[in-house]
Amino acid sequence: MAALFRSSLRLRPATRLSAVRTLTTTPHLRAAEKPYFPNEPSAPKLATAIPGPNNKAAAEKLDKVFDVRSLNMLTDYYKSTGNYIADLDGNVLLDVYAQIASIPVGYNNPHLRKVAESPEMITALINRPALGNFPSHDWAEILNTGILKAAPKGLDQVFTAMAGSDANETAYKAAFMYYRQRERGGPETEFTEQELESTMNNQSPGSPQLSIMSFKSAFHGRLFGSLSTTRSKPIHKLDIPAFDWPQAPFPTLKYPLEEHVQENAQEEQRCLQETERLIKEWHNPVAAVVVEPIQSEGGDNHASPAFFRGLREITKRNNVLFIVDEVQTGVGATGKFWAHDHWNLETPPDMVTFSKKAQTAGYYFGNPALRPNKPYRQFNTWMGDPARALIFRGIIEEIERLNLVENTAATGDYLFAGLERLAKQYPGHIQNLRGKGQGTFIAWDTPKRDEFLGKAKGVGVNIGGSGASAIRLRPMLIFQKHHADILLESVEKIIQQL
Amino acid sequence: MAALFRSSLRLRPATRLSAVRTLTTTPHLRAAEKPYFPNEPSAPKLATAIPGPNNKAAAEKLDKVFDVRSLNMLTDYYKSTGNYIADLDGNVLLDVYAQIASIPVGYNNPHLRKVAESPEMITALINRPALGNFPSHDWAEILNTGILKAAPKGLDQVFTAMAGSDANETAYKAAFMYYRQRERGGPETEFTEQELESTMNNQSPGSPQLSIMSFKSAFHGRLFGSLSTTRSKPIHKLDIPAFDWPQAPFPTLKYPLEEHVQENAQEEQRCLQETERLIKEWHNPVAAVVVEPIQSEGGDNHASPAFFRGLREITKRNNVLFIVDEVQTGVGATGKFWAHDHWNLETPPDMVTFSKKAQTAGYYFGNPALRPNKPYRQFNTWMGDPARALIFRGIIEEIERLNLVENTAATGDYLFAGLERLAKQYPGHIQNLRGKGQGTFIAWDTPKRDEFLGKAKGVGVNIGGSGASAIRLRPMLIFQKHHADILLESVEKIIQQL
Repeated sequence: MAALFRSSLRLRPATRLSAVRTLTTTPHLRAAEKPYFPNEPSAPKLATAIPGPNNKAAAEKLDKVFDVRSLNMLTDYYKSTGNYIADLDGNVLLDVYAQIASIPVGYNNPHLRKVAESPEMITALINRPALGNFPSHDWAEILNTGILKAAPKGLDQVFTAMAGSDANETAYKAAFMYYRQRERGGPETEFTEQELESTMNNQSPGSPQLSIMSFKSAFHGRLFGSLSTTRSKPIHKLDIPAFDWPQAPFPTLKYPLEEHVQENAQEEQRCLQETERLIKEWHNPVAAVVVEPIQSEGGDNHASPAFFRGLREITKRNNVLFIVDEVQTGVGATGKFWAHDHWNLETPPDMVTFSKKAQTAGYYFGNPALRPNKPYRQFNTWMGDPARALIFRGIIEEIERLNLVENTAATGDYLFAGLERLAKQYPGHIQNLRGKGQGTFIAWDTPKRDEFLGKAKGVGVNIGGSGASAIRLRPMLIFQKHHADILLESVEKIIQQL
Repeated sequence: MAALFRSSLRLRPATRLSAVRTLTTTPHLRAAEKPYFPNEPSAPKLATAIPGPNNKAAAEKLDKVFDVRSLNMLTDYYKSTGNYIADLDGNVLLDVYAQIASIPVGYNNPHLRKVAESPEMITALINRPALGNFPSHDWAEILNTGILKAAPKGLDQVFTAMAGSDANETAYKAAFMYYRQRERGGPETEFTEQELESTMNNQSPGSPQLSIMSFKSAFHGRLFGSLSTTRSKPIHKLDIPAFDWPQAPFPTLKYPLEEHVQENAQEEQRCLQETERLIKEWHNPVAAVVVEPIQSEGGDNHASPAFFRGLREITKRNNVLFIVDEVQTGVGATGKFWAHDHWNLETPPDMVTFSKKAQTAGYYFGNPALRPNKPYRQFNTWMGDPARALIFRGIIEEIERLNLVENTAATGDYLFAGLERLAKQYPGHIQNLRGKGQGTFIAWDTPKRDEFLGKAKGVGVNIGGSGASAIRLRPMLIFQKHHADILLESVEKIIQQL
């Protein structure tokens, strides 16, 4: 399957801003840049204190039936456009959080609107198929022109899912079945009576005590299997039974990278060695290692391509599958279509999971032996949602048409340069700036993180955090340099208020 | 929240067919019955052997990228109407399987088409919100006029999910958090340092060794937590690590029920006693019991309302939550909106999970203490899909407008009477006929089950099985008596071919 975006390179080197704009200047378009959304606001608009009266009243109403303690803002999606999100009080904010990194091509994208109005969409919505049993006549075509068109290099098949958690868990299941099949002597070997009986009691050997290895601070989802690999924060895990699975150390790099080259290399070596030791010694044998290219919920923790190449080598050497969780990093945000495209792997990952910006979910794979040896082993009623698969196809078309991966690479470099300058100016507020050369997937630490986030809306920006002390930027792929200018100004404004 | 359908009663007593129609008669409408889909075919249409050449070619194409070993038939949804499903070769079958019991109001339902074309739908599709953080301005209204309008008695809140597995797993998570909160001494008690630390290593006490009890032959999903409560078939479970959770015996009733009243009552008593013993003695304390009103994937196993009332009593007595999994039974198919409406419980279930015919998923609850004590404990990026929530609202509107729960109750009685007559005529082929008074949620055992299913398409019917030897009927809610006539004829035709 052709993967159109895998070799997308950043076309333009980082362009330096001559100076961060003064706070009062209304940003305007750079001459060279054509806006993707001509009808976007030119700047955020603040009409009330946030939350305003309408948002407060609506939250109270919603609270009666739905937990609103995690509410960030009630949103008027009809009035949201491109990179700008609108609340119910006339406030319009530059959105660099984008539905927890999941909106790729802008609110009310006109091309996606056409997709939403298409006959294919209508039938997918009202005649929802059980995809494993009764796929539509054009399901192969929808896959080939959509989900699979964006498939990572070397992976030409997909198991479709609903969201990040079940994408990861079905990948884990495939890994366990593959592991046991190899132990058993191949796909033709039948299950033993003992396996058939013990599995009905959740006991070994039918339900074997195997494990998935993940990394400290990782986030892979919140259902029982995925949560057992999630190691981000106690609040995600407390009170929920978990499998006795191992966690390897993830490198803690020092910034700026160019000043800590040797130290960081040593740290990565230490983590790789410990990873391999755990694979060899963990009491519940490891069927697969799962890793995020950039640990996102866990605090935007990066590692070098060399680290991931080392991990790939270790997994191969130890006959363990290598699963790359691209739920948050995938679909262009790092300046490549898949973040693991930055690694130059010699052999591709065994499985790559996706969700969020894809607006649908699943795992890609290439090795035909990862299809379980019998039907109905990897199965569920819906196996995804073709309506959302059509939206992903529309997103891919929009990314192609507008060269949005390239845009994100270039805008990211521009934004990073501006943040570097701010970091020099405000070293107490912008620490461990990271994500250079990773598109707009940028983060930094700040001692007053929650206060920073609390003030962001007041300067017109919707922004999120990750981990304990990071500000994470997750703009859409249509985020351009003039948006970066506004963001840089806003960051400075917030810092000056702290 | 008003639950409009909870008291929906069967309006008409069972009407007896004078005789099952002869095989060659073209079925026609009964005078008294107005068809819901005026443009439906009047009978199945067979154009080729099934699968025909177009279906074979399409399957071969799909196989290259997607596992087709579970393929039943590639479907032309544009040509499917009401109760009739069309393949790619001109064959049109009466569909009493309905996408594994998940299509409720007919293929290409005109009202759902309007919903699919509405501005609310377009924005839900192209501006997909992270519902826990950025719900749309009208999310409370969408819930109140949709999902919550159908809420079971006593349950006025909902946590929205994507499909049956995560609906159940999030309910389990709520149960575990509730259990530990009670142990801890209430919602105000803070977590201990030991809990905060141990959970990051997947160890107790932070990740406690608690359990969910399910029943032998149960099916609750296929992700790691739900699969640990699934006890249907080895093929669903093999090679996947599972939690050490208990399974209680589910009653094995003898049919016809009226001839085995005392025996069956004793069997149910035995199961209840063993259930309570396991709750008291299982080494991993039981936080909740989960049960299907009718075990569906596991073979269409029924129990009496008295059994379920007993189960509710046991769970109350032992401070264990009672979760009713209505993923397959919910939304009208049993002749009540929720199957547990048949039980006349004194106190409602603690949680009721739904999916399939709702076309969206989640769990209902009433007790405010089932909202975890802190935000972000029960959370994920999308928390469901408003596009699918809008479809459910449309389905509810259609059920109301056409009185489809009443229709299903009446059609079910009519169909059951016809099957009883066939069972007398062919006692070797229709055994343990069950589902009387349960709408169209009807099943029977047959010794040549797979052969039976294999011949069904040849007589124009799409039909499914469950468990090892059951034929399960899962028609839509728009299944009427004239459809039942065709089905009864078809069943007889198949039997005569065996």
